[in-house]
Amino acid sequence: MERIQMPDWITRKRNGESLAEEEISALIRAYTLGEIPDSQMAAWLMAVFFQGMNAQETLALTRCMVDSGLRLDLSGLGCPRADKHSTGGVGDKTSLVLAPLVAAAGVAVPMISGRTLGFTGGTLNKLESIPGFRVDLTVPEFQRVLEKVGCAMIGQTAELAPADRKIYALRDATSTVECIPLIVASILSKKLVEDLDALVLDVKFGSGAFMPSAEKAAELAGKLVEVANSFGTRTCALLTDMNQPLGAAIGNALEVSEAIEALQGGGPADFVGLCEDLATYMVVLALPQEDPEKVRQRISKLMSSGKALEYFGRMVEAQGGDPRIVDHADLLPRSRHQHVVRAASPGYLAEAGARGLAIASMNIGAALNDPAVGLVVHKKVADLVEKGEPLCTIHYNKEALLSQVLPSVEMSFRIRQEKVQPPALVAGIIGAKPGK
Amino acid sequence: MERIQMPDWITRKRNGESLAEEEISALIRAYTLGEIPDSQMAAWLMAVFFQGMNAQETLALTRCMVDSGLRLDLSGLGCPRADKHSTGGVGDKTSLVLAPLVAAAGVAVPMISGRTLGFTGGTLNKLESIPGFRVDLTVPEFQRVLEKVGCAMIGQTAELAPADRKIYALRDATSTVECIPLIVASILSKKLVEDLDALVLDVKFGSGAFMPSAEKAAELAGKLVEVANSFGTRTCALLTDMNQPLGAAIGNALEVSEAIEALQGGGPADFVGLCEDLATYMVVLALPQEDPEKVRQRISKLMSSGKALEYFGRMVEAQGGDPRIVDHADLLPRSRHQHVVRAASPGYLAEAGARGLAIASMNIGAALNDPAVGLVVHKKVADLVEKGEPLCTIHYNKEALLSQVLPSVEMSFRIRQEKVQPPALVAGIIGAKPGK
Repeated sequence: MERIQMPDWITRKRNGESLAEEEISALIRAYTLGEIPDSQMAAWLMAVFFQGMNAQETLALTRCMVDSGLRLDLSGLGCPRADKHSTGGVGDKTSLVLAPLVAAAGVAVPMISGRTLGFTGGTLNKLESIPGFRVDLTVPEFQRVLEKVGCAMIGQTAELAPADRKIYALRDATSTVECIPLIVASILSKKLVEDLDALVLDVKFGSGAFMPSAEKAAELAGKLVEVANSFGTRTCALLTDMNQPLGAAIGNALEVSEAIEALQGGGPADFVGLCEDLATYMVVLALPQEDPEKVRQRISKLMSSGKALEYFGRMVEAQGGDPRIVDHADLLPRSRHQHVVRAASPGYLAEAGARGLAIASMNIGAALNDPAVGLVVHKKVADLVEKGEPLCTIHYNKEALLSQVLPSVEMSFRIRQEKVQPPALVAGIIGAKPGK
Repeated sequence: MERIQMPDWITRKRNGESLAEEEISALIRAYTLGEIPDSQMAAWLMAVFFQGMNAQETLALTRCMVDSGLRLDLSGLGCPRADKHSTGGVGDKTSLVLAPLVAAAGVAVPMISGRTLGFTGGTLNKLESIPGFRVDLTVPEFQRVLEKVGCAMIGQTAELAPADRKIYALRDATSTVECIPLIVASILSKKLVEDLDALVLDVKFGSGAFMPSAEKAAELAGKLVEVANSFGTRTCALLTDMNQPLGAAIGNALEVSEAIEALQGGGPADFVGLCEDLATYMVVLALPQEDPEKVRQRISKLMSSGKALEYFGRMVEAQGGDPRIVDHADLLPRSRHQHVVRAASPGYLAEAGARGLAIASMNIGAALNDPAVGLVVHKKVADLVEKGEPLCTIHYNKEALLSQVLPSVEMSFRIRQEKVQPPALVAGIIGAKPGK
């Protein structure tokens, strides 16, 4: 019988002391069971915000959040399992490509995803723009789709990491989200219940990301990789630039459409390249005996051959969606109107501000749960632009909203006369061994 | 209609920004009305703990806590009003003497007191050891006693500073008590509703006090005096040493008995001296035209002549207590047993640890609401002690408890061979103008 001594745990954390593993686990268990009130938990979380947690504390916190609910047993699949987690970006639809692509490469992908958060779109919201697609599968249904297709994509359920659900809701209400040890435990507790062999993290930085700088992203990535590896899950992290949107499309149905385009062998180069990078790391970490260069080639071929698209179609069908969308993107919701924003002057694109464009996409109707609306950006930073050339197409349904978002869309683009160096999309990789 | 934007207020305070007066008042009002949940308030309080509050914020917080409930109107009394507040000490029964003493000097004392907190005894608990004494008068009853006697002593009621009651309970549960701006607002909001002309603060430091050092006490005292003066209440603060108990008695009935002894012209010199100091400041601040030296002499005379005791008897009677205790201290609860702790070696008393003795008093039964138990300390620091001489008498009712507390009582006393310098009881005075 463990003793709950919450006032003491708050005071000690507040004073900069660290708590023992048993104390953290007693605290989290008691809070999840409702034996500690929200008020005391909020005070403790704010003390953690100011005083941090050491490596042992972060590991203990993650462990008891993983253990707070059901952990999947996917050993019956007879193949290794890998997943990817992104810290959230603008135009980031990589999950839609990665799940079928990696499954096609022989590694199962049991993906539990999140919803839209602030201005960053959620994978679940994107999937729900596919007519009929169900993200609310029960755990047994999820396992059946995995067995049948090799990949499945659902939302967090009540049985998986319930401590995280409860703590995250409280952090959201009490301004204690932006705290690295709490972020690490929250992200990993949701992934480590998936019974993974390998995990690839996409830690984004820049105006359209949660972390402002590559340095901050590297700090978070380092902690994530360290803790995940302690659990025996082979893990690496890519640090990726989110100052401009990833790919071209921002908005739920528009992003599904772009993901399908990529799975058909097309799509924007930056987006396709990142999908292939992430998929390669997922497979290489899951199958460490394989040659990374050969994996990379196989991944490219699975994209260009339409094999990955086939897996996508099967997953859509297995989760209740209309599989015809694979060949008929026009079955996705489409907006009634389009408005093209054009370059006011010639030059080189110096900026396509991810945050401004994401907020514009929200304001044009995505925030009102209209799956059809959003933006398609036609130029990447460093591209040559002629006067009057299209920079972006706004897809919208409500006339009145266009004039409201137009100024912020226009202001998100900056053109200058001098040449612009194209920024590297992947700024660094943490935790991966060099290829053979 | 003010907007409640609590997440933003938490974030900004967390980030070290200050809030505007209107924001603080909207926040406190909304919390008091139950429109902000305890969890968000707890997070905000912890952010305040780490980031502090500037002078304007502290003033705004105090003002809206004062305005959260009823404010007394005592102008009808036809005389100035003064009160004293102590930050809590061991053996501190000054309030029991000051109320009747200052009333006898022609300044009304509308005293709203507190209960036992941690190891420091509460004035209300002491008063309740007087048979029949009611501390739970309604506000109209309180005003009638004030009119009749010139002083009255009650507990905080639901109508007075309700914001403080609610916030203090939350701070107590969330380890956010030890924070100067929150302490300032809490103390002053309870006093400023009393419609005072003058306020004297007794800010204690040392092992038996909340503030460990004279420096910390001076910091708190400075803020208290500054804010109280901003409200137009003439205020000063004494910094007093609480490393050894004040006077001799620790324990509810024992302290009432010692207060009566002082009002009869006897009592320990340190305790009587501090009562006269505090009373003089209360009267001089309330009647600024009077000569401080003459006030001091009048105060001494009111003590020695029994005039102040007469006021005490009238107050006890008016509040339902047995006025015969004034002449018959044996009507107070008395313990069945006494045990004398004696000096193990001769020398000079170097230490009579206030905290250890206070905790021993709690453990011998005060914590179980036994009003009769406690300690009487017979020596002050620097006193010459002979071997076997009584250091302290333990008053107790339960045999089993004696052996439990005895070691800690013995360890609280330290005797050494070399002479010891008697410590100054009053280490400093903040905010008072020098006497004429």
